[in-house]
Amino acid sequence: MPAQDNLKPVLTAAEVNALMGTVYPQLNDQFAFYQALEVFPGGCTVRLNADARHLRPGGTVSGPSLFTLADIGGYVCVLSHAGPDALSVTTNLNINFVRKAEAGPIDGHCRILKLGKSLMVFDIDIVAGPDGQTVAHATGTYSIPPKRAGDVVK
Amino acid sequence: MPAQDNLKPVLTAAEVNALMGTVYPQLNDQFAFYQALEVFPGGCTVRLNADARHLRPGGTVSGPSLFTLADIGGYVCVLSHAGPDALSVTTNLNINFVRKAEAGPIDGHCRILKLGKSLMVFDIDIVAGPDGQTVAHATGTYSIPPKRAGDVVK
Amino acid sequence: MPAQDNLKPVLTAAEVNALMGTVYPQLNDQFAFYQALEVFPGGCTVRLNADARHLRPGGTVSGPSLFTLADIGGYVCVLSHAGPDALSVTTNLNINFVRKAEAGPIDGHCRILKLGKSLMVFDIDIVAGPDGQTVAHATGTYSIPPKRAGDVVK
Amino acid sequence: MPAQDNLKPVLTAAEVNALMGTVYPQLNDQFAFYQALEVFPGGCTVRLNADARHLRPGGTVSGPSLFTLADIGGYVCVLSHAGPDALSVTTNLNINFVRKAEAGPIDGHCRILKLGKSLMVFDIDIVAGPDGQTVAHATGTYSIPPKRAGDVVK
Repeated sequence: MPAQDNLKPVLTAAEVNALMGTVYPQLNDQFAFYQALEVFPGGCTVRLNADARHLRPGGTVSGPSLFTLADIGGYVCVLSHAGPDALSVTTNLNINFVRKAEAGPIDGHCRILKLGKSLMVFDIDIVAGPDGQTVAHATGTYSIPPKRAGDVVK
Repeated sequence: MPAQDNLKPVLTAAEVNALMGTVYPQLNDQFAFYQALEVFPGGCTVRLNADARHLRPGGTVSGPSLFTLADIGGYVCVLSHAGPDALSVTTNLNINFVRKAEAGPIDGHCRILKLGKSLMVFDIDIVAGPDGQTVAHATGTYSIPPKRAGDVVK
Repeated sequence: MPAQDNLKPVLTAAEVNALMGTVYPQLNDQFAFYQALEVFPGGCTVRLNADARHLRPGGTVSGPSLFTLADIGGYVCVLSHAGPDALSVTTNLNINFVRKAEAGPIDGHCRILKLGKSLMVFDIDIVAGPDGQTVAHATGTYSIPPKRAGDVVK
Repeated sequence: MPAQDNLKPVLTAAEVNALMGTVYPQLNDQFAFYQALEVFPGGCTVRLNADARHLRPGGTVSGPSLFTLADIGGYVCVLSHAGPDALSVTTNLNINFVRKAEAGPIDGHCRILKLGKSLMVFDIDIVAGPDGQTVAHATGTYSIPPKRAGDVVK
């Protein structure tokens, strides 16, 4: 797919991380496990720094941990491209787990497939390990709340 | 769908909870948030006791928390019906979030759509609130490892 | 899930069949393969009369034929419950194929999980054969166009 | 995602088209609507030549037609990379429809996310129109039958 470089982010990765830390403290209640690495036109890169708490039986990173990374990838896309309305919500997410991942940095390469007024559709390749192999792939939809009169970004 | 009452569970809900506590301590590292309530032929009921740590911006239960409940529902089904091999893994999970849920008990009604030798397909209705309305619905697939010679169920 | 019997259909199965025949002639260009059997509060039943043209290698009903039945199930739900706006469109559909189906009648039992102003989420159990076993299961979302001033149902 | 260029196709696009014409005549019962354009290491390109019979209300290409293209994309990948066993079957397919497509050539760019012994996971970007915009995106899984002793490719 040609990059949708007509899309213009309105927040940087640092701004999104600060926003998520404020509005969504549960996400990283003790340490910075999930974070935005980069925001670019039409997408973003997010990272999970997986440690023992993210593992499941077999010693591999759990499905819920990878789901969370996928969901955060979409959240960073919608916050950075549609504006910092923290109340955008996921309506659908489909994820395939294709390889096991060990503890360590796990990166999600996320792109926007469609940014409409009320919905954003995205996909994300989740890669890990020295060879950067795909460990999971997800697609999802965020619902974007209508703009309210008098909205001010703080 | 007629109930698949030809399926016979080999573990009870209490046995599955004990098994998950042993093999998957990360799931409930401090308290019993996720648990199996009941195992019956062809399905199970699971519960998330959602508190502040499971909320997202807007004060509603987060997507990852509901995803985890859906994933646990499938895990309880596969452990209880295909035998207690902790290494069964999710290969695909698709979830729709249809209503907001507040903190409190959230129940997942899970049924097996197909139990084969190497794959189990399930769906789950996740309901909450005084009216028991659907807040999310998911379908997923677990991969079941081949039986190894000398396997003993303990 | 408790039946959502607060939902009230505004069209019968016969009315939906007549509407689909008018607005979507490609669906059944020669014979009546796909049809609504019943519309009830919160759902519907649809049928595919599968013959040789719906088969794939192996002599079983093809994935696209079952997908079409799932999609029609959602279309019948949205037409019958949100009103006969033919321009409602599918935005997402996830389908699991769990057993092979042979030529013959294949029924889809469809229920509405959420009917909002702009989106409808549904799922469908697709069953076939003398035992009525599930052959596929799908969940999907329809986008409902905004009501236009002066809309008249003809 | 880095291209999985360690994967080696065993059939060309022309060979796959000939194979599909033989084993799956229902796909193109009158004309060549669905075809493989190219097979390359780790993926393929497929095309739907959409005409009036593929349209739905509103004059846009129907969901089932785009689903079929996605499914064919996976089928071409599995036939060309895992060998010409016509009995590989789709077990899951998730599709998002993000823009309307008009009649004309519609291309699917398909890549293999994982090729295992018994399962292949793929995704596909479906693009159309003068700007090559994404109209749909799908991910899916094919089940690959076990190799049988004495299998001969004919």
